[in-house]
Amino acid sequence: MYDDYETLDTFGPAQIFGTATKTLGYKQTFYSLEGGEVTNYQGVPLMTKRLDSIADDARPDIVLVPGGWGTMKFVENEEFMRHFVKLSESATWVLTVCSGSAFPAKAGLLDGKHATTNKSLYKMLIAYGPKVKWNKSARWVVDGKFYTSSGVSAGMDMALGFIADRHGQEAAEQLAKGIEYVWNSDKDNDAFVAMADETNSPL
Amino acid sequence: MYDDYETLDTFGPAQIFGTATKTLGYKQTFYSLEGGEVTNYQGVPLMTKRLDSIADDARPDIVLVPGGWGTMKFVENEEFMRHFVKLSESATWVLTVCSGSAFPAKAGLLDGKHATTNKSLYKMLIAYGPKVKWNKSARWVVDGKFYTSSGVSAGMDMALGFIADRHGQEAAEQLAKGIEYVWNSDKDNDAFVAMADETNSPL
Repeated sequence: MYDDYETLDTFGPAQIFGTATKTLGYKQTFYSLEGGEVTNYQGVPLMTKRLDSIADDARPDIVLVPGGWGTMKFVENEEFMRHFVKLSESATWVLTVCSGSAFPAKAGLLDGKHATTNKSLYKMLIAYGPKVKWNKSARWVVDGKFYTSSGVSAGMDMALGFIADRHGQEAAEQLAKGIEYVWNSDKDNDAFVAMADETNSPL
Repeated sequence: MYDDYETLDTFGPAQIFGTATKTLGYKQTFYSLEGGEVTNYQGVPLMTKRLDSIADDARPDIVLVPGGWGTMKFVENEEFMRHFVKLSESATWVLTVCSGSAFPAKAGLLDGKHATTNKSLYKMLIAYGPKVKWNKSARWVVDGKFYTSSGVSAGMDMALGFIADRHGQEAAEQLAKGIEYVWNSDKDNDAFVAMADETNSPL
């Protein structure tokens, strides 16, 4: 986490993985560089733990980084990037939502890999990874350990896709049903692809 | 807010109204009885202000209460209910998501009014308002100052519906597009209506 994260980028997947604590044994914790309260332009103050409080033998299996207006600042923050790369290298899975793709892209972790990102700022965001095989039409993309999703609410669709890949389609459908969510379950088709070519972002 | 609130009940609408800070002048603040950190079984710790810190001349125009497993406890909390009723009476609009409908229902504020609630625990929840005209098939219901939505993710659809009612359909569609969300915009048709009659909740 970091200041000016996007609300639903974070809490959409947190709803999915958090609900899976009961049925599938997931457990989630929020970390930021300094720990304590992080907030955003939407006025959502989240409590976090310090990134450097993660012991080497207790690193997360899954790392998820949200996007948001703070992305552009924190991809330039060397300490944040050092933590992100270290956690990503040891993690089994790395998930990004929206502009969060810029973190692994700028670090070179996505070089030669397929990935996607936010569609409303698509041209700006793909510039963070000139060697990435960017996929404009996907809702989310899986390549090796990396899951990258399109903008904001697409993080929920990707999280359900992640659950389906690990635990089966039925487990993901039950989770979606439990939160009364109409899952956009086809990762290869994003309803917002046309935005990537528009010049006026709705953001 | 209260302990064991549901994550997306809260942050789905918070994404919509929070994004509308930029374009439509909305501003949101989170309150709980004691203030400070409130958290839930999903492990999402939110910082809040004290409910009794709201000055009489600075009461919110819009009150939104989420649902969650904590609902059943806090509808029995007299102090919480006193704050909720006072804020609801002075507010121009009162919005509930999921089991959050139990707060105005139990207080009698929905008596004689049309409303809806979570579908996976439908029978249990409508018992909080025996004089409410419960609508099983709606995604969300508007009656006077009250907006009530179906479960969890339906709160986002309702929030966009609220924006459409106040600022026009185009404003809501632009907000949905900006967060790359496929809006379920027909408030009278909930894809999860069948769950209300099922005996085994997926929750």
